[in-house]
Amino acid sequence: MEKSVVNWSEKELSDLKKILESEYSEFAGRNLALNMARGKPGSGLLDHNNPVLETLSVTSAADGTDARNYGILEGLPEMRQFFGEVLDLDPERIIVGGNSSLTLMYDSIARLMLFGSCGYPAWSRVEKRKFLCPSPGYDRHFAITQEFGFEMITVPMTATGPDMDVVESLVAGDETIKGIWCVPLYSNPQGICYSDETVSRLGKMKTAAPDFKIFWDNAYGVHHLYGETKLADIFAACEAGGNPDRAYYFFSTSKITFPGAGVAMMACSFEERKEILKRIGIQTIGSDKLNQLRTLRTLKDAPTLKKHMAELADILRPKFDIVLKTLDEELKDGGFAVWNSPKGGYFVSLDTLPGCAKAALELAKKAGVTMTGAGATFPYKKDPQDSNIRIAPTYPSDDELRTAMKLFCVCVKLATVRKLCGEF
Amino acid sequence: MEKSVVNWSEKELSDLKKILESEYSEFAGRNLALNMARGKPGSGLLDHNNPVLETLSVTSAADGTDARNYGILEGLPEMRQFFGEVLDLDPERIIVGGNSSLTLMYDSIARLMLFGSCGYPAWSRVEKRKFLCPSPGYDRHFAITQEFGFEMITVPMTATGPDMDVVESLVAGDETIKGIWCVPLYSNPQGICYSDETVSRLGKMKTAAPDFKIFWDNAYGVHHLYGETKLADIFAACEAGGNPDRAYYFFSTSKITFPGAGVAMMACSFEERKEILKRIGIQTIGSDKLNQLRTLRTLKDAPTLKKHMAELADILRPKFDIVLKTLDEELKDGGFAVWNSPKGGYFVSLDTLPGCAKAALELAKKAGVTMTGAGATFPYKKDPQDSNIRIAPTYPSDDELRTAMKLFCVCVKLATVRKLCGEF
Repeated sequence: MEKSVVNWSEKELSDLKKILESEYSEFAGRNLALNMARGKPGSGLLDHNNPVLETLSVTSAADGTDARNYGILEGLPEMRQFFGEVLDLDPERIIVGGNSSLTLMYDSIARLMLFGSCGYPAWSRVEKRKFLCPSPGYDRHFAITQEFGFEMITVPMTATGPDMDVVESLVAGDETIKGIWCVPLYSNPQGICYSDETVSRLGKMKTAAPDFKIFWDNAYGVHHLYGETKLADIFAACEAGGNPDRAYYFFSTSKITFPGAGVAMMACSFEERKEILKRIGIQTIGSDKLNQLRTLRTLKDAPTLKKHMAELADILRPKFDIVLKTLDEELKDGGFAVWNSPKGGYFVSLDTLPGCAKAALELAKKAGVTMTGAGATFPYKKDPQDSNIRIAPTYPSDDELRTAMKLFCVCVKLATVRKLCGEF
Repeated sequence: MEKSVVNWSEKELSDLKKILESEYSEFAGRNLALNMARGKPGSGLLDHNNPVLETLSVTSAADGTDARNYGILEGLPEMRQFFGEVLDLDPERIIVGGNSSLTLMYDSIARLMLFGSCGYPAWSRVEKRKFLCPSPGYDRHFAITQEFGFEMITVPMTATGPDMDVVESLVAGDETIKGIWCVPLYSNPQGICYSDETVSRLGKMKTAAPDFKIFWDNAYGVHHLYGETKLADIFAACEAGGNPDRAYYFFSTSKITFPGAGVAMMACSFEERKEILKRIGIQTIGSDKLNQLRTLRTLKDAPTLKKHMAELADILRPKFDIVLKTLDEELKDGGFAVWNSPKGGYFVSLDTLPGCAKAALELAKKAGVTMTGAGATFPYKKDPQDSNIRIAPTYPSDDELRTAMKLFCVCVKLATVRKLCGEF
């Protein structure tokens, strides 16, 4: 069946529909209960990190500080040193947070809403504030800007990052556009890596808003599956463009050690860091330094982390291989969908024919496999094409994943055929 | 010397000044370097908690959840159960946070500023918003309301809590008064415990603002030094008064296990908890559940916690005894100061003669003993009497504390005598 399903005859579609319905019934009868909705690591990945759980026998930091007590708002020097080494950032840009980089992002926008930054007015005073949302993207990013009352503007993704022609044109003409969400390496969900040119253009583009911010969520900065991909330095790009305060950089060890019990950080310009630390100093006396020590004891330094991530990749890669192999076998012929083959990160992004994603995911859910909801990768959870599906292969066991992916492919095909038969 | 120093002759004052200046010089020559500025536990207290640092061998929560992974926004059920048992609160009121109750308070005010609550408008829209600050009080509370642009209104403290006649009269007539800071048990710094009547009046008082909030920071709720003091139920009081959404309750294990690596919580009405969880769900995927398990493994249940706190009290009590004994010996005759004898908590509060606190603390600092800055216990760091001093005896060793307190008493006396001699 070389020709695309859209060119099939009614008879061909109807014959396939019968077969698929029978296959689907068979799956539905198995009482599956698999959850692939979120990018959660599976127990194999978690077990690999169990050394973090071991006794913390030394609680003195490198400079002699007792990490059991209050203080050190910006995080332990050795924790900032570690993040700096791993991400090639000056530790003097870094503020160590609690267990969640998402919280650092939310708190950053909350601060900008309430106080503004660098002398510019509070964003809450900007009546029709807007935010750029390269899409498909991360639903929790979009949820934050929605919560704070931003109109979210969808920007299309290209193979090298957000469509920069669109971005440049939008930000140049509208001072109520205050920022952009970016997952620059192995983007969620497409696994796209921003090119050097994209980074450079983000740093130097003219923005009507003088306080425009790039939210640089490098969540998968060390999550290489097939060798390292380099990411250009966003701070250097901003400085070269004469916009030193433009970028907020976020990272965490949530998907390196334990989700929800890792260590998060943010980085920004030296000037702005002073301002932010002053404000954070009203909010907290300091984040959990014992967890910083625990994390450092396991991850140690950049070379140890590299080895650690390579070991995690050995667990993750077979899962991605199962997904991609199944898609290849089941959906390629007939052109039921297109998808990416990511070189890292946590997701595979798939596009069905227009109007089929929601139906396919409903079928999967009814048969016991919950996946990320249709539309979740777009602002307001509204995919204009009803086409994009985020596949999160990290949580199930390999066997569960094989089953889930086979069922998923049956659902995509069945939804497509039903759609083409005019059933919805 | 039975008569008060204010009634001394010039000759008497001048003679004493000479003696004190010589004593002070002797201390100044010792090159002391002691810091008593903050309520930090000393190493003896910290060492007692080292079991928290031991290997976490089981990471399954009671309901089977793997605490290493994402999720459970409101905190582990057993953590909420524990807090509920210890504080006599319904666990269904409780949201477990990260390592800092201060952050939960800041975030609560930030949420009210940005979104309001229970359908009432955002506080940021209230032009001349105000907040009641019973004083002397906790400087970090005042710093939060100052940061968010509240005019802070000082309310005097009585032996049973804030002067409720003043509070009732203020809140009844001004709808821009949005809340009150309360440390209801062993208040910081005076160690005052709110009486049942105070709690009842707070719950039922008529407030012009329909969204008036009591910030109930029960930081020292289990820090009894000489037997237990009971605190009335603020939620029951609010409900009895027909104001079920009035109180936000805060607590943490920071001064039970490790400062900055404990577990914090907030509690509120059942209705409002739903609203808050929805908003927090945008800010985080959940707080550190492994630290919840670590904390629970050591503190276990209410009886174990009680025993634990009694052991900590055995370390703390001698420190309070040193402070009170020294004050008694050095400052009572002549009436150089008055102070409280707290039955729990972390501080002793002392009042010098008007206009002497700043000078006394400057003398102490010059001789190497840093204490909480003069004025810190009042809004805007401005003590109208320049009289209140917060003594934080928990951090130094007993020997250091003896030396520091002797020096401190010399400084108070010297400042007083200089003041009475008209030197400043």
